[in-house]
Amino acid sequence: MKEIFEKVEPKEIEARSFEIITEELGDTLLIPGTEPIVKRCIHTSADFDYAANLCFSDGVVEKALEAIKQGACIVTDTQMVKAGINKRELEKYGGEVYCFISDEDVAMTAKEHASTRAAASMEKAMQLDRPLIFAIGNAPTALIKLYELMEERKYYPKLVIGVPVGFVNVVQSKELIMKSENPYIVAKGRKGGSNIAACICNALLYMIDR
Amino acid sequence: MKEIFEKVEPKEIEARSFEIITEELGDTLLIPGTEPIVKRCIHTSADFDYAANLCFSDGVVEKALEAIKQGACIVTDTQMVKAGINKRELEKYGGEVYCFISDEDVAMTAKEHASTRAAASMEKAMQLDRPLIFAIGNAPTALIKLYELMEERKYYPKLVIGVPVGFVNVVQSKELIMKSENPYIVAKGRKGGSNIAACICNALLYMIDR
Repeated sequence: MKEIFEKVEPKEIEARSFEIITEELGDTLLIPGTEPIVKRCIHTSADFDYAANLCFSDGVVEKALEAIKQGACIVTDTQMVKAGINKRELEKYGGEVYCFISDEDVAMTAKEHASTRAAASMEKAMQLDRPLIFAIGNAPTALIKLYELMEERKYYPKLVIGVPVGFVNVVQSKELIMKSENPYIVAKGRKGGSNIAACICNALLYMIDR
Repeated sequence: MKEIFEKVEPKEIEARSFEIITEELGDTLLIPGTEPIVKRCIHTSADFDYAANLCFSDGVVEKALEAIKQGACIVTDTQMVKAGINKRELEKYGGEVYCFISDEDVAMTAKEHASTRAAASMEKAMQLDRPLIFAIGNAPTALIKLYELMEERKYYPKLVIGVPVGFVNVVQSKELIMKSENPYIVAKGRKGGSNIAACICNALLYMIDR
């Protein structure tokens, strides 16, 4: 049975995977400095569409790494994104991960304002007195709320990772974020998800050490 | 700004998404009775490949629903899969979700046996005196361990959801599970992930009520 498997030590599997991805990308053009992020998204999904659909604002990678080094915290829209982020790595720089979607006060605010819990959880997060990176893998309404806060000059996140997945208002919410002049990493189109949001955070974290 | 968005009430978004997916699937053939699972995987990933790559053992959906109704628990290979499962829905039937990957005794067993934590966490899970569904979104070594346990007639899960994602030994580990005569749902090929593993569990849970 064993002979059907490629012999790779557990700790070497990730490196071997990235080799295969690099090989199969061939001469696909990637924006210099974004390669580790694009490749990790492909690693997480086995979907090479991410080579084409990831969009980066100017200089976003440097700004994001700097923010993390300065102790930025990460706010997620779902517990699943939170579960996927390498919290031990983030803690090295003083950051923490927050997700307010299941909080009772968030549910109440959403109901009062006829809004969504995802949108209300963004407003709760901006009260935190710390620099924040937002990692949105699910809710277009969270992205719309962040855009509104920026437009109204009420709040500017250090970075918006806008990668909700889906079929209703997802594409438009991402286009909106790409209109802002704030740093963003967005997966254009319908694709994305909790796994992609978490893996972009991890890709950034691993770039600091490497 | 609002006019760029489709007007859909938050609670209608899922239904509208499934409508779009059904429309776009057109006359794609799906195995009768598996449609809600396939469509939810597409809903979770915006990736229509899942219409072709999901494989189901004979009568697996009925068996899985029956197991859940009988109080089956779900064992996951990562915290992210656990985070994504609708635990409140599972609890209605008496089930719980377990993930042992971060346990210290699992780390020790893995080290002793020169194995992986994922494989060791499967062995810990089979000690539970409850009917179990395994939802594997990440680790091919977890699937290989489950196959070995079945081959050695040591343990038979109620269902194996085999949807790890990746480039090294992932495809082979899934082929192995499809050789077993035990109930399985497998995403053939490289694709899958924590999101897909969780969403298949949720699709099954939602099929009971609907």
